[in-house]
Amino acid sequence: MKPFPLLQTFIRFFKEKNISLTQHRFLLAVSGGVDSVVLCALSQRAGLNFAIAHCNFGLRGEESNRDEAFVRSLGEQYGVAVFVQQFDTAAYAGENRVSTQEAARTLRYNWFDTLRQDNGFAYTLLAHHANDNIETVLMHFFRGTGLEGLTGMPDENREKGCLRPMLHLKRSEILVYAAEHNLQWVEDSSNASSKYTRNFFRNEILPQLQTVFPQVEDNLLHNIHRMQRTAALYNEQVAALKKKVCEIKGEEVHIPVLKLLQYRHTSLLYEIIKDYGFSESYVAELLKLADAASGKYIANEAWRIIRHRAWFIIAPKT
Amino acid sequence: MKPFPLLQTFIRFFKEKNISLTQHRFLLAVSGGVDSVVLCALSQRAGLNFAIAHCNFGLRGEESNRDEAFVRSLGEQYGVAVFVQQFDTAAYAGENRVSTQEAARTLRYNWFDTLRQDNGFAYTLLAHHANDNIETVLMHFFRGTGLEGLTGMPDENREKGCLRPMLHLKRSEILVYAAEHNLQWVEDSSNASSKYTRNFFRNEILPQLQTVFPQVEDNLLHNIHRMQRTAALYNEQVAALKKKVCEIKGEEVHIPVLKLLQYRHTSLLYEIIKDYGFSESYVAELLKLADAASGKYIANEAWRIIRHRAWFIIAPKT
Repeated sequence: MKPFPLLQTFIRFFKEKNISLTQHRFLLAVSGGVDSVVLCALSQRAGLNFAIAHCNFGLRGEESNRDEAFVRSLGEQYGVAVFVQQFDTAAYAGENRVSTQEAARTLRYNWFDTLRQDNGFAYTLLAHHANDNIETVLMHFFRGTGLEGLTGMPDENREKGCLRPMLHLKRSEILVYAAEHNLQWVEDSSNASSKYTRNFFRNEILPQLQTVFPQVEDNLLHNIHRMQRTAALYNEQVAALKKKVCEIKGEEVHIPVLKLLQYRHTSLLYEIIKDYGFSESYVAELLKLADAASGKYIANEAWRIIRHRAWFIIAPKT
Repeated sequence: MKPFPLLQTFIRFFKEKNISLTQHRFLLAVSGGVDSVVLCALSQRAGLNFAIAHCNFGLRGEESNRDEAFVRSLGEQYGVAVFVQQFDTAAYAGENRVSTQEAARTLRYNWFDTLRQDNGFAYTLLAHHANDNIETVLMHFFRGTGLEGLTGMPDENREKGCLRPMLHLKRSEILVYAAEHNLQWVEDSSNASSKYTRNFFRNEILPQLQTVFPQVEDNLLHNIHRMQRTAALYNEQVAALKKKVCEIKGEEVHIPVLKLLQYRHTSLLYEIIKDYGFSESYVAELLKLADAASGKYIANEAWRIIRHRAWFIIAPKT
């Protein structure tokens, strides 16, 4: 067996995106788990100039501190700076009425973004891999989702300056690489809900599916790529249709009712109103409004959609 | 608990499609299982004028004959005609090099269609229900699929004159109805591959998913409806784009290369060539052909795509 070409795959990712390996400084998001430890190793071998960012969410007591210490030692080993941030995740979640998981995500990405901009890093590198993406898509699918939810994580987010250079590598490849290079890492004993659901798919559902569909992982990765291409075309077409029917007037959007309804598709109605925070259930209301008298409206917390003569007018509430 | 409004749901299905309950003759596809037995009961109570069609695939020996006899007695009970066809499914599968399952499907639908047209039935009614649809979509998803594969079975196929008036009913509702009305039915002990895969999702995967996502069935039905709406808009947009770039000339299709490539989406390229039996893997070949010299071509069994000066020409091979 020839050695896994992980490093070549990693390097090719940057080449294909026209991102120089040597002319930028990179920030690596490192938890201390095997994925991010391999990210460090690959980054060093690819010649990247990098520093490490580690989040201590303080959710696992002594284990959180062990992880922080491990990542600090990793920084020493590679001779690179380590930024550590402690978060009061539980307090943030309580104040903002979001789940612990959602709080951790918001805190983490906001901090990466600030750190990157304040310290002149060109990109934040995240260690998500192909199996993370499969698990993400499965969670979306079984919770209920549209086309977008089946496209998985993007391998870049230009807005946030994030790249996922390992998104096309499988967990099994990463583990083999770690073993072959005698890498050390820490295991996260966390049983937070997201973790639990991921483990459920990883350890229970997917192995069973493999007994009936041996190629299920490849099939799901193939789905993700097909859905990404379908969504790209769909989104472009929806944007073109919106431009045809929506007239932007300051903060308001004016839409001729007859023109809109000639595109009978409820899917288009949803795509238009979702930008203003209306859920799918409002589509039926909007259709009723098409038959309603001038002056009637539907509303959510921030926006009204008003029937005004032959128009729908989407306007802010205040 | 008030009685299940299955009959009302069944009747509403026809009303919404503007199909008269009393002015047509209907052909019911009846295997003898609980779903098709309930289809018979609902059809009678809704006042339909119907006959029964039963396929004997001869794949389960004495059990196949038991089912045939059961369906014949069902016909006597309702005082309606029973058409029975015996198929040599294994021979057809062998001759046409398709799976037994695929052979049974082709034989069945072709026979229904002939029977319907020869005997003046307006529609064939199929007893597929919501859980069949969920299982179909799960099989597509884990085998690998595009958007279309996630839209499930349609509740009508005008071309084949088929309707699925029970597609929005759940298995549990159907079983309760059968019990409440003391209906008798036969159980299919078949272990054919499709059956096996369906049972795998029904008995193993879905119950486990329900422990983590209690509403998983509803979530998946909701997905199916969202995907149907998304696909309707997507397909209409793709058709409009094809019309813009493809010029039909007799049996050939002429496409200006530059005009096609301005819609950078590989998804569109695939939608165009798939109508001529080219798989997704040809998209990369087509992109190479865009840079190739005049006269070069790619081909499958029946069609060529030729680079001719500034054009792609899709032409039959003969």
